[in-house]
Amino acid sequence: MNIRFARRMDSVHASTIREILKVTEQPEIISFAGGLPAPELFPVDDLLSAAERVLHETGASALQYSPSEGYAPLRESLAAESRRRGIDCSAEDILITTGSQQPLDLAGKIFLDAGDCVLTESPTYMAAIQAFQTFEVRFATVPTDDHGLISEELPALIERERPKFLYTIPNFQNPTGRTLAAQRRKTLYSIAARYGLIVIEDDPYGCLRYAGKTIPPLKSLDTEGIVIYLSTVSKTIAPGLRIGWVVAREEIRRKLTIVKQAADLHTSSLDQRIVHRYLTDFDSSAHIERIRQAYGERYAIMDATLRETMPPGFRWTHPEGGMFLWVTCPEGVDTNELLREALLRKVIFVPGQDFFPDSSGQRFMRLNFSNASPDSIREGIGRLAEVCKDAVHAHA
Amino acid sequence: MNIRFARRMDSVHASTIREILKVTEQPEIISFAGGLPAPELFPVDDLLSAAERVLHETGASALQYSPSEGYAPLRESLAAESRRRGIDCSAEDILITTGSQQPLDLAGKIFLDAGDCVLTESPTYMAAIQAFQTFEVRFATVPTDDHGLISEELPALIERERPKFLYTIPNFQNPTGRTLAAQRRKTLYSIAARYGLIVIEDDPYGCLRYAGKTIPPLKSLDTEGIVIYLSTVSKTIAPGLRIGWVVAREEIRRKLTIVKQAADLHTSSLDQRIVHRYLTDFDSSAHIERIRQAYGERYAIMDATLRETMPPGFRWTHPEGGMFLWVTCPEGVDTNELLREALLRKVIFVPGQDFFPDSSGQRFMRLNFSNASPDSIREGIGRLAEVCKDAVHAHA
Repeated sequence: MNIRFARRMDSVHASTIREILKVTEQPEIISFAGGLPAPELFPVDDLLSAAERVLHETGASALQYSPSEGYAPLRESLAAESRRRGIDCSAEDILITTGSQQPLDLAGKIFLDAGDCVLTESPTYMAAIQAFQTFEVRFATVPTDDHGLISEELPALIERERPKFLYTIPNFQNPTGRTLAAQRRKTLYSIAARYGLIVIEDDPYGCLRYAGKTIPPLKSLDTEGIVIYLSTVSKTIAPGLRIGWVVAREEIRRKLTIVKQAADLHTSSLDQRIVHRYLTDFDSSAHIERIRQAYGERYAIMDATLRETMPPGFRWTHPEGGMFLWVTCPEGVDTNELLREALLRKVIFVPGQDFFPDSSGQRFMRLNFSNASPDSIREGIGRLAEVCKDAVHAHA
Repeated sequence: MNIRFARRMDSVHASTIREILKVTEQPEIISFAGGLPAPELFPVDDLLSAAERVLHETGASALQYSPSEGYAPLRESLAAESRRRGIDCSAEDILITTGSQQPLDLAGKIFLDAGDCVLTESPTYMAAIQAFQTFEVRFATVPTDDHGLISEELPALIERERPKFLYTIPNFQNPTGRTLAAQRRKTLYSIAARYGLIVIEDDPYGCLRYAGKTIPPLKSLDTEGIVIYLSTVSKTIAPGLRIGWVVAREEIRRKLTIVKQAADLHTSSLDQRIVHRYLTDFDSSAHIERIRQAYGERYAIMDATLRETMPPGFRWTHPEGGMFLWVTCPEGVDTNELLREALLRKVIFVPGQDFFPDSSGQRFMRLNFSNASPDSIREGIGRLAEVCKDAVHAHA
């Protein structure tokens, strides 16, 4: 039987990373591919205690249907967390979502018609490209350098492309690890305000800074109500719980809530209460400090090993936080081919291609430094450097 | 600032039921409105033990990212459950979703272009209407009687409307409580197969039968791979966990998986493992038997009290399972107005209107009998009957 799928499915495909992630389950492979936090740092005992308290004390409510907006006490906690980040908000301004992936889909639903333009960094988070692609949009990209997207380029782009919104990851961007400089944030915001451009600020990694000074989010500048701020507990508590949140002005948040209701009714009542209880009863700041320290060490080891082992012509970013660094290979190297060779040596990464809305970027690779142990990082980067040397020789 | 939302948002609105559900949090109100299971029947202690075992034994994996398809052992359990219902399938045929609301959105994504036609019962599940509406479709409805949708009407409808799929709830339908007769299922399936029509079979209530004999699902007849079967643990274990599943042929399931990934990456790893552990270590059949018995009693009490108290001219359905019955009021009664009066007497229900794709159905109301205690049912139906008497007098 010949099934008629929707038109949008012509451009929606399984990503390379998904296929790669299946391979990473083989234990002998060292993976720098996934965006996985270090599982040995999950606060398992505290979350177990939190789960026990929730189910003992309010078990029936924790297992019942609950409001689409989210569990009110957790909205309070996440508003407090957002205020600590410099965002002026209260519990009513918060929408709790099923991870911070979900609001990308929800924002697409409320803003995007077929043929609309979405503005992004290039490269950008691949699952954001996937989420927006389902709305049959076109992408325009903002040039970037080591200090993030070049805000000064925005006016010309906005006037030419008339984008529905700008999607940006200002802190320790996925995939590059780069951070948008403070002055550029101000410039970006004032341009967006001038043009009435909606900005989706995705901030999953902001808390994971191990060097340098915190820069306030775009949302902290948002006097006009044009910034939609997204964050998640995936990198600071645990991703398996799928708890994210949105801070947005009422008109936008209400529409997001309506489409969330049609998408999954609400986010797990139990997981929301576990996270609330954990944030209330345990020392989450001390926990995040441990993560920061560990990731800082892992980054330093990866950077040092890259310097020791990589052949000339390879460059990489030097992030001050987050989970990723981004390698630029010499002209002519195709990281899709490199990955096949790397697999033979039992080390993997993500080739750059899927991070570019136009599928360019064959010269790049993303390396994750949060998930592997220090010893595995040394061993894995050593293996990867061998693969890179071979590639350069083959090409020379 | 004037925000430009997507065109689809013109037809997407907050539902009446959401506004009503906010009111139900006042404890003095007796609610027949929500589709809530009885929370006093949730297996809280067993789920607590299951959660403790999961977090003790494999805490880190239970908190990590996991595959979009779902946790493999839970896919096994849900395949076994589906086989018990007569569906020939294995773990690979299962996609785990964030409740069984999510696959409505996902099916919309993979099948629906703007302007397409969706075929439904009328009335039907209001959040299915909402989910499909976001794809800017039109609805065509299949006539129904006490034995569910009248399959014989399908060929003319299919030829005239060229629908992308039929959405149906064969068991104890929401909102009517009606069940599609066995012979009609066979007729429906053979017509769908003849026309190559995709059928989305939504079966959240099938296990909640308290009278009569189980009828095999449409999916059990599906030699052609045209039926997408949806179910959930929301009514048999707990809705707050947001665990649903899909059984569908590979070509369809793969596409659903890709759009699920863009929608929320995956369903809560922790909740999936808790449900798996619960199904493996505890007696879920005995638990469902308790639910069945309780709901059967509550239905009987509601039906008896309706017979004792309602004025002439009101009719209602006599479901053999599920959570709802459906009241038809005399010509001229508007249940939206009735609801306002009922609120004054501190009893609520859902007016029929939102269950009809064309917003007709002002004569109907949906009553839930699973959530209120037997005493509250007697008291609440008594109050409702007074409101109905007043309405009939006012109208006479």
